[in-house]
Amino acid sequence: MGELTFEISVSVDGFVAGPDADQENPLGIGGERLHDWVIKLQAWRETHHREGGEHDVSGDLLRRSIERVGAAIMGRKMFSGQEGPWGDEPFEGWWGDEPPFHYPVFVLTHHEREPLVKTGTTFTFVTDGIESALEQARAAAGDKNVAIAGGAEVAQQYLAAGHVDEMLLHVAPVLLGDGVRLFERLGDDLPQLEIAEVIPAPDVTHVRYRVVR
Amino acid sequence: MGELTFEISVSVDGFVAGPDADQENPLGIGGERLHDWVIKLQAWRETHHREGGEHDVSGDLLRRSIERVGAAIMGRKMFSGQEGPWGDEPFEGWWGDEPPFHYPVFVLTHHEREPLVKTGTTFTFVTDGIESALEQARAAAGDKNVAIAGGAEVAQQYLAAGHVDEMLLHVAPVLLGDGVRLFERLGDDLPQLEIAEVIPAPDVTHVRYRVVR
Repeated sequence: MGELTFEISVSVDGFVAGPDADQENPLGIGGERLHDWVIKLQAWRETHHREGGEHDVSGDLLRRSIERVGAAIMGRKMFSGQEGPWGDEPFEGWWGDEPPFHYPVFVLTHHEREPLVKTGTTFTFVTDGIESALEQARAAAGDKNVAIAGGAEVAQQYLAAGHVDEMLLHVAPVLLGDGVRLFERLGDDLPQLEIAEVIPAPDVTHVRYRVVR
Repeated sequence: MGELTFEISVSVDGFVAGPDADQENPLGIGGERLHDWVIKLQAWRETHHREGGEHDVSGDLLRRSIERVGAAIMGRKMFSGQEGPWGDEPFEGWWGDEPPFHYPVFVLTHHEREPLVKTGTTFTFVTDGIESALEQARAAAGDKNVAIAGGAEVAQQYLAAGHVDEMLLHVAPVLLGDGVRLFERLGDDLPQLEIAEVIPAPDVTHVRYRVVR
């Protein structure tokens, strides 16, 4: 069985989005700078159907990460920017007809919906909680890992429940001052960490932590 | 003229002390784990008059840091654990007769007090603000750097005022969940950062940032 992992870009002051994040601007004020290091990479641009791009140590890391993932779990806000009923013409995600995932994605929501099939990626909507989503994602991933694709709240729920094996933080040299914090509501039984790997790059510091049981 | 720098141990979730920090337990619940990486080092133990200790990449970094500092500024709480008038037998700091600094230390306080002379270190109490303390510390440091010796609030004030040239974060693989945050009250004109150096160690990740004007 694979592991449950998450990776996310975070500011030096611990935010994964800047202030005033909403559906129009899901990364909040200044938040796009958290991803400067990745959107220039060929490895990222390929999966998002964009040409060109650079290659560096971060590109190597990204390719390694992508290869390890067999399924993902994401929150409803990550999928559609807002919560609530789906409506008559439900939003189909930010990613167009061929989403970058190319593995099954399980979306945590309170509102039932039929699976959404796109080229290479099927989104399954899970209404019966994080344990159920994890079970379904593990079954779909086989020997590969299940990735928590965000947002922060979903990562927090799985961390607090003791399910996360590894987290990979991409710490961008940015202060946001306010916004959406990565680490909150972790409960009283705080996860214990060990440093597994540090990969310095000129514009981001990648730190991989193991969560120790 | 030297630079204004600060270095501090911080948790992965951004705290420099755990919850319920007070004069009895200035690092709060769990906060002592932030310093596990340093108190085992020979380079640290020497300055604190303790025998033994190990040497590793963190020790090299610590020795380099110590050599660069010619004066320090610290907050009243860092010096004595509490604010308020000094009283008849004023507290003389946590560090005994030979404090580990061996350079002049300027303590920010609202309450006047004569300088306190210890072996190798004189503490000067500054009541007319952070600019005055910086000016006095720069004069004392000569060509060397002025270090902000803590706590977080003092670092925040100098960051928000645009005086800090460099910060060195020792990120310990610890989640504290709550406590004293390193980055708060930075104002609207947020400092811009660049990564200057990353030094991975097994039990801590050292990241040096330049503050860009």
